[in-house]
Amino acid sequence: MDSIYLLSPMIAGAVGLVIAAFLYFRVKAQPSGNETMNRIAGYIREGSMAFLVREYKVLAAYCLVVGALMFYALGSEAALWFILGAVLSLLAGFIGMKAATFANVRTTQAAAESTKGNALLVALDGGAVMGLAVAGLGLLGLGAVYYCYRGTEHVGTILHSFAVGASSIALFARIGGGIYTKAADVGADIAGKVIENIPEDDPRNPGVIADNVGDNVGDVAGMGADIYESMVAAIVSAMAIALTIAPMSLPQIMTDSSDVAAVRMMGVGLPLILSTLGLIISIVVIFMARALKNKKPATVLRSSLMLPPVILTIVSYICMPMIGVTQNVTWALAAGAFGGALIGLVTEYYTAMKPIRLVAEAAQTGAGTGVIRGLAVGMESVALPMIIVVIAAYIADAQLGLYGIALAAVGMLAGTAVVMTVDAYGPIADNAGGISEMSGLDPKVREITDELDAVGNTTAAIGKGFAIGSAILTVVALFSAFNMEVNHVRQMNGMGPMQLDLTSSGVLIGILLGSILPFLVGATTMTSVGKAAGKIVVEIARQFKEIPGLLQGKAEPQPAKIVDIATSAALWEMILPGMVAIVAPVAIGFLMGPQALAGMLAGGLAVGATMSLFMANAGGAWDNAKKFIEKGGLPGHKKGSDAHKAAVVGDTVGDPFKDTSGPGIAILIKVMSVVSLLIAQLIALR
Amino acid sequence: MDSIYLLSPMIAGAVGLVIAAFLYFRVKAQPSGNETMNRIAGYIREGSMAFLVREYKVLAAYCLVVGALMFYALGSEAALWFILGAVLSLLAGFIGMKAATFANVRTTQAAAESTKGNALLVALDGGAVMGLAVAGLGLLGLGAVYYCYRGTEHVGTILHSFAVGASSIALFARIGGGIYTKAADVGADIAGKVIENIPEDDPRNPGVIADNVGDNVGDVAGMGADIYESMVAAIVSAMAIALTIAPMSLPQIMTDSSDVAAVRMMGVGLPLILSTLGLIISIVVIFMARALKNKKPATVLRSSLMLPPVILTIVSYICMPMIGVTQNVTWALAAGAFGGALIGLVTEYYTAMKPIRLVAEAAQTGAGTGVIRGLAVGMESVALPMIIVVIAAYIADAQLGLYGIALAAVGMLAGTAVVMTVDAYGPIADNAGGISEMSGLDPKVREITDELDAVGNTTAAIGKGFAIGSAILTVVALFSAFNMEVNHVRQMNGMGPMQLDLTSSGVLIGILLGSILPFLVGATTMTSVGKAAGKIVVEIARQFKEIPGLLQGKAEPQPAKIVDIATSAALWEMILPGMVAIVAPVAIGFLMGPQALAGMLAGGLAVGATMSLFMANAGGAWDNAKKFIEKGGLPGHKKGSDAHKAAVVGDTVGDPFKDTSGPGIAILIKVMSVVSLLIAQLIALR
Repeated sequence: MDSIYLLSPMIAGAVGLVIAAFLYFRVKAQPSGNETMNRIAGYIREGSMAFLVREYKVLAAYCLVVGALMFYALGSEAALWFILGAVLSLLAGFIGMKAATFANVRTTQAAAESTKGNALLVALDGGAVMGLAVAGLGLLGLGAVYYCYRGTEHVGTILHSFAVGASSIALFARIGGGIYTKAADVGADIAGKVIENIPEDDPRNPGVIADNVGDNVGDVAGMGADIYESMVAAIVSAMAIALTIAPMSLPQIMTDSSDVAAVRMMGVGLPLILSTLGLIISIVVIFMARALKNKKPATVLRSSLMLPPVILTIVSYICMPMIGVTQNVTWALAAGAFGGALIGLVTEYYTAMKPIRLVAEAAQTGAGTGVIRGLAVGMESVALPMIIVVIAAYIADAQLGLYGIALAAVGMLAGTAVVMTVDAYGPIADNAGGISEMSGLDPKVREITDELDAVGNTTAAIGKGFAIGSAILTVVALFSAFNMEVNHVRQMNGMGPMQLDLTSSGVLIGILLGSILPFLVGATTMTSVGKAAGKIVVEIARQFKEIPGLLQGKAEPQPAKIVDIATSAALWEMILPGMVAIVAPVAIGFLMGPQALAGMLAGGLAVGATMSLFMANAGGAWDNAKKFIEKGGLPGHKKGSDAHKAAVVGDTVGDPFKDTSGPGIAILIKVMSVVSLLIAQLIALR
Repeated sequence: MDSIYLLSPMIAGAVGLVIAAFLYFRVKAQPSGNETMNRIAGYIREGSMAFLVREYKVLAAYCLVVGALMFYALGSEAALWFILGAVLSLLAGFIGMKAATFANVRTTQAAAESTKGNALLVALDGGAVMGLAVAGLGLLGLGAVYYCYRGTEHVGTILHSFAVGASSIALFARIGGGIYTKAADVGADIAGKVIENIPEDDPRNPGVIADNVGDNVGDVAGMGADIYESMVAAIVSAMAIALTIAPMSLPQIMTDSSDVAAVRMMGVGLPLILSTLGLIISIVVIFMARALKNKKPATVLRSSLMLPPVILTIVSYICMPMIGVTQNVTWALAAGAFGGALIGLVTEYYTAMKPIRLVAEAAQTGAGTGVIRGLAVGMESVALPMIIVVIAAYIADAQLGLYGIALAAVGMLAGTAVVMTVDAYGPIADNAGGISEMSGLDPKVREITDELDAVGNTTAAIGKGFAIGSAILTVVALFSAFNMEVNHVRQMNGMGPMQLDLTSSGVLIGILLGSILPFLVGATTMTSVGKAAGKIVVEIARQFKEIPGLLQGKAEPQPAKIVDIATSAALWEMILPGMVAIVAPVAIGFLMGPQALAGMLAGGLAVGATMSLFMANAGGAWDNAKKFIEKGGLPGHKKGSDAHKAAVVGDTVGDPFKDTSGPGIAILIKVMSVVSLLIAQLIALR
C-alpha cells in the first residue's frame, strides 16, 4: 500500500487533535463571568481534576501490574503498547475534562450576556474538544501500531495489547465515574429534597458541587474512555479477523482478488482507512453544526447525529472503487452506520416519547406502579435494538462474512467524534444550569441553560443507544476474532479447529457461567451507588446540623468533603466489578480452555447486551417521566405533587440503572472479549 | 423388562391419587366454622372456580386449535396425547384448587377451636392433595404413554406431544394466574392503603376477596401446572435422549452393557422408575410430616423439603444394583436432588436472611434506595444457583453424559409431591389468615394463622428456588434432547449431524434473538399487572364513592365485580406472552432452520434462567424486608413509618417480579424447549 494510505490515519488523527486544541483555546478565551460563578466553577473544576488525579494513580498501579504480567507473558513490546493504549485513553479523558470544566461556566456567561446561539456554541465547542481528542488519539495510536508493525509476525499481539490498554482504562473510568456521578446525584437529591426540603442545585446544599463534578467525571471522562475503547476495539477486531482468517474464507473486498497476500493486507488496512474517512466527515459535521448555531438547538444536535451515516455511505460508495475495493465494503459499513442511527432513534422513542407518558401516568397511583411501568418499558425496549443489531450483522455477514460484521461495527463507530461531541455537550449544559442557579443569576439565564440541557438529555439518550448498540456489534466482532485467533494458533500447531458445538458440556457450562457476570457487575455497582449515596446523605445532614447558619444561607457549606467521600467510594468500589471483567475470562480460559471461554463470551453477550439496554432505557424513561410531570405533562399533577414524588422514586432507581450499571455491563462484555482476544494465543492449545 | 416395572409408574400414580382423595375428604370433613366464615370462604371458592372455568374455556379453544394443527402435522395419536397431557394438568389444577379452597376456612376454624398443630395439619393436608395429584397424574400419564407405545417407532413423538400438552397449560395457567394474583394484590393494597387508608384484609375493601382468590389461582393452580410440567418435561427429556442417542454414545447405565437394545430400553424406562421411587418417598415424607404436626411448623416444613434428596440417594444406592443398573445413575440423580435442595437454601438466604435487613435499612433513606438495594440483592442472588446448576450438570455429565444431565433434572424433581405440598400449603395458610380477619374472629386466631403463614412464606421461597432451579436444569436437558432428535432424524435421512458451531451466523443470530424473548415476556406481564391493578383501583374507588355506608362498615362491598375485572384482565393479557413462547420457536425453526432455533434456545436459556432468578429473589427480598420492618426489625421504624412506606413500594414492585414475570420467564424457556423438541423432526432437514 502506498505510504499515503499508511500515514493517513495518523495525519487525520493529528489534524483532529490540532482542531481540538484550537477549539480548546477558543473556549478558554470566552468570558467566564463574575467572581461567584468563577468560584463555583473552580470548585467543580478542582473536584473533577482531583478525582481524575486520584483515579489515575490507581490506574497507574493497575497498568504497572498488568504491564509486568504482559511483559512476562507476551514480551516487552506488548507491555509497551498496552501502556500506550491506556495512556492515550487517560490523555483523552484529561483533555476533555479540562475543556468541559472551562466550557460550563462560559456557557452560563454566554447565556447571560450574549445569545442562546452563542451559549450553544460554547457548549458544543467544549464537547467537540472531547470528541476530537477521543477519535484523534484513537486513530493516531492505532495508525502508529499499524505503521510500525505491519507485516510483522506479532502485529496481532501488539494490536490486542493496545486494545486491552484502552479497554482497561475504559472499564475503570466508566465504572468508577458511574459510581461517583450517581452516588453524588442520588445523595445530593435525597439529602436536599427529603431531609432538608431545599430545591435542586441550591447553593446551600453541600452535595451540589459533587453532583456537578459527577456529571464531568461520569458523562465526560467515563463516557469518553468508553467510546474511545469501542472505536479501538471495533477497528482491532476487524484487523485481527483479516490477519487470521483462513485463506479460503478471505472476504470479497477487492475487485481483483487474485493476490491473497494483497487482499489480506487490504483487509487489515481498510478499517483504519474507513475510520479515517469517518473522522474527516465528523470534523466537517462539527463545523456544519457550529455554522447552524442560531437554529433550534434540538435540530442542530439531532442532524449532527444523523448526518454521518449518510455522508459516510456516499463517500465510501465513491471512494472504494478508486482503491480497488468492492462495494460489499460500503454495504457492510452502511449496515452498521445506519443501524447505529436507528438504534439511537429507538432509544429516543423509549426514553422521550409515548412510553414516558405511560410511566408518568402510572406514577399517579404511586411510586410502586411507576417503578413497575418503567421496568416494563425498559424490558420492552430491548427487542428492537437487538433486532437491528441482528439485521445489521446479517447484512454485513452476507456481504463479507465475519469480517463484514466487524466492518459494520467500524461503520457504527465512524461518527465517534460527533457522538462524543454531543455526549460531552450534555454535562456542560447541565453544569451551566447548575452554575447559574448556584450563582443566583437572573432566572432567564437558567431558562436558556435549561433549554440547552433538555436538548442535551434527549441527544444523550440517542448517544447512549449508539454506544450500547456499537458495543454489542463490537462484541460480536471481537468474539469472532477470538475464535479465529484460537483456530489460527491451533492450525499453526498442526491441530484441527476448536470444536465449539453448542451441545458440548464445556461450551454450555461457559454460557451458563457467562450469563452470571453481567448480574454480578450490576449487583456490585448498584450496591456501591446505594452505599456511597448513603454516606453522602449522612455527611450533608451533619453539615446542616453542625454548621450554624447554613440552612439560612448565612454560612458556606463544605463541598470538598462530599467530593472526597464520593471520590474515595468510587475508586474503592470500582475495583471489584472491574476485576470480575478481567479475571473471569483469564481464569476460565486458563482453567477450562478456549471452548468454555467462548461459551462464556456468548453467554455474557446474550445477557449483557439485553441487560444494558434494559437498564439504560428504563433509567432514561424514569428520568424523562419525572421531567414530563415537572413540565406539566399530567394535568393536575405539578412539581411536588404525589405523582411527581412517585416519579422521583423512579428517577432515583433509574440513576444507577442508566449511568452506572447499564453502561458498566456494556463495557464488561467488551472488556471480557478484548482480554480473551489477547490471551487467545496462550490458551489456544488447551 | 418385567411387567412389574412397566406397571409400577401407573400403580404408584394411582396410589398417589387414592391418598390424595383420602386427604381431600378428610379435609372436607373438618368443621368449617360460623356462617360469616363460610360466606367469605364461599366467595373465595366461587371466585377461584369461576376463574378456573373461564380459563379452561380459553384453554379448551387453544387445545382444539393446536390439537388440529398437530393432527395435521403429526397424526391423530399425537393430537390425542397432546390433549391428554393438557387435560391431566387441568385436572390436577382443579383438584388442588378445590382442596385448597376447602382447607383455608377449615384451617381458620382449627386455629380457632383446636390446636396450632391441628390447624397446621389441615393446611398441610390441603396442600398434599395438590402435591399428590400433580405427581400422581404426571406419573399415570407418562406411565400410560410408555406402556402403550414402548418399542414403537413413534413413542418419541407421543412423549413430546404429551409434554407439549402439559407445557401449554402450565404456560397459560402460570402467566394468567400470575397476572390475576398480583393485579388483585397490588390493586387491593393500593386502593386499601393509599386511597382509603384501611388495613390489610379489611372486609370493607371490595378487593380483598379477589386478593384471596388470587392466592389460589396463582400459587395453587398456576404453581401446580408449572411443577407438573417440569416433572413431565424432565422425564420426557431423559426418555427422549435415551431414544435418540447414538449407539456409540450410550451412557454407562447397566452393569452388563453388552446388549445395546437392552441398555437403550433401560435408559428409556429408568426416568419413570426413578420418579416412581420419588413419589413413594414423597408419600412417606408427607405422612412423616403429618405425624410431626405438633413440632414447630418451620421445622416440619423445612425437614420435609430437605429429606427427599437424602432418602432418594440412599434408596437408589440400594436398589440400582438389584436391577442391574450402575451407581453412575445414583450419582447423577443425587447431583440433581442435592443441587435442588442447595438452591432452595440459597434462595432462603437471599429472601429471608441478611440481605433483607440490608434492603430494610436502605429503605430508611427512601423508597428509591430501598428499591435499588432490592434490585442489587436480586442480581447478586443469580450467581450461586447458576453455579450450583453448573456443578450438578457437570457431575451428572461426567457420570452419564447428556443423559446424566436429564437424570439430574429428574432427581431434582423427584420430590415434586412434597415441594408442591409445601407450596400449596402457603396460600391456604394465607387465606386462613384473611378469612379470620374478614370474619372478625379473636385476634389470637390471627396470631396462629400468621405464624403458619410466615412459615409458608419462607418455605415458599425455598420451593420457588427449587422450581426455577429445576426449570433451568430441565431446559438444559430438553435442549440436549432437541439436538439429539434433530441429529437422529438427519442421520436416518443419510445426513451428517447439524453444525452448531457458536461462530456460525445462524447460531449467533439465534442466540441474540433468543435473548430478547425473556424481556418481552417480562415487559408484557409487568405491564399487564400494572394495567389490571389500575382498573381494580378505579373500581374500588368507585365502590367506596357510590355505595353509601361502605367506608363505615354499614354496607357490603361488591367483591364479584373485582373478581370479574381481574379474571378478564388475566385471561386477556396472558395471550400475548403465551403466544410468544409458542410462536417464536415454531417461526424461527421453520423459517431459519434448526441451527438458529438451537441458538435461540441457548440465548433464551442464558437470559431466562438469570432473569427469572433475579426477579423471583428480588421480589422475595422486598416482601420480607417489608415484613421485617413490620415485625420491628428496625428499631424506631414500625409499621406506618416512612421506612415502612418505602419498603411497601419495594414490595409492590416485587409482587409482579416474583409471582408473575419471574415464574413466567422460567416457564417461557421450558415451553420453548418442549415445543422445539416436538417440531424437531419437522425441521431437522432444513
